[in-house]
Amino acid sequence: MIIIGERINATRKTIAAALEARDEKFIAQTAVHQAQAGAQYLDVNGGDPRPGREAENMAWLAEVVQAHSDLPLAVDSANPDAVRRGLSLARKKPILNSISLERDRLEPMLPLAAEHECMVVALLMEDGGIPCGVDDRLARAAALIGKLAGVGKKVDEVIVDPCFLPVSADPASGRAVIDAIAAIRREWPDVHIGGGLSNISYGLPKRRLVNMAALAQAIYAGMDCAILDPCTPGIVPTILAAEAIAGRDEFCMNYVMGEREGRLGE
Amino acid sequence: MIIIGERINATRKTIAAALEARDEKFIAQTAVHQAQAGAQYLDVNGGDPRPGREAENMAWLAEVVQAHSDLPLAVDSANPDAVRRGLSLARKKPILNSISLERDRLEPMLPLAAEHECMVVALLMEDGGIPCGVDDRLARAAALIGKLAGVGKKVDEVIVDPCFLPVSADPASGRAVIDAIAAIRREWPDVHIGGGLSNISYGLPKRRLVNMAALAQAIYAGMDCAILDPCTPGIVPTILAAEAIAGRDEFCMNYVMGEREGRLGE
Repeated sequence: MIIIGERINATRKTIAAALEARDEKFIAQTAVHQAQAGAQYLDVNGGDPRPGREAENMAWLAEVVQAHSDLPLAVDSANPDAVRRGLSLARKKPILNSISLERDRLEPMLPLAAEHECMVVALLMEDGGIPCGVDDRLARAAALIGKLAGVGKKVDEVIVDPCFLPVSADPASGRAVIDAIAAIRREWPDVHIGGGLSNISYGLPKRRLVNMAALAQAIYAGMDCAILDPCTPGIVPTILAAEAIAGRDEFCMNYVMGEREGRLGE
Repeated sequence: MIIIGERINATRKTIAAALEARDEKFIAQTAVHQAQAGAQYLDVNGGDPRPGREAENMAWLAEVVQAHSDLPLAVDSANPDAVRRGLSLARKKPILNSISLERDRLEPMLPLAAEHECMVVALLMEDGGIPCGVDDRLARAAALIGKLAGVGKKVDEVIVDPCFLPVSADPASGRAVIDAIAAIRREWPDVHIGGGLSNISYGLPKRRLVNMAALAQAIYAGMDCAILDPCTPGIVPTILAAEAIAGRDEFCMNYVMGEREGRLGE
């Protein structure tokens, strides 16, 4: 399971404030805490509406995070200049987060994916909007995997994000995304599947409970990558337990190691 | 989801002591707490090695539990006399827990299932032992559903217990049981599927975490009945969340009601 720690994102007020103040200590702590909790990549997003500022933020975040952690980066932006800066500064093979079938996203990002040795999150969005059902997701995954193959990306360098949508708005959307994960896994055994899952619980109370159940179900279906906050109690234990039951943890070694390393919580 | 509260079982030391002392208050409290936590049936097991004693225990438990709770009983015993007493005393349509393909269990229990209006847990065990893989479970389920149909039980009066086995002993056993649930659900859309799930985590630390992940995955596959302790933190919330994502809770009404009634915990 590829766990991408999501906390270093300027949409969080504390991160935005730390970015503005260039508070290296706070960013470093956020990186270290996520690594201790089980993150294998650290997402960095320096979103900023001021012209030119996001690329500067990205460069600063990339330097600070890599000064305090050995983990590779997930360079997270819709801004091509910011993505270029982040990918250029990455010391280990990073993740480009993300590309999609939306013209404004695909056209600038595809050359960046081609130029840099990186993995790529392929979000199943297009200009027509969010995906609907299993077949639509399969078709969009095929299109994006094809585009990325066209610029030299191998299938195991692609992370298909199936688009988790709120079940509170559409009761069928939970089965749609999880059945789509199973279908994508059957079609491309070597592709990675995952992304930001927490949208599934939007609008519900105690969202963490819904996220944990969805995570266990999605992992069973074949999800093997998640962008989340590994410091949230119960999340990493859910991943380890779900993988053990899904037959992806031989004799539960990772789960038992998780206990020894204190990652299963109280 | 049919939630059967498992606490009133003489294999628990506190229950065995309360049974021995005919401590009505303790048994009543255990019944009430499980009902408040979300149980819809209350399992009663008065296991006792002394001759004749188990049937007496069962009769006492059935009276006490029904004096303090409106919930129907799950009459839990391998002893035909105890089962007969329990079923005879049940005021609401109970569950017989359980029948199996083992000759010593099948032959005495099948007439009891026939004589009483009750649901029946059909455990996929036979004299040859535990089930192995998906096809073996499907064949055993067909055999038991057939035997029960032969004495007049409708398919929606049968609860197939697929036999959860420890993943710590066999890494393939998690996928075997959950894929079997999906296969049984496809074959018999109206049968109930479930049973005691916690065996899946035997031998592992923090068993509750493994049980919660397995519960979410099994519910997605089609499990709609569980014998468990509804007072264990996180268990009932996991069920409600898992059903919402699995498309079995229209607009998440049960989940949201669970929050209002305080069943989602802190």
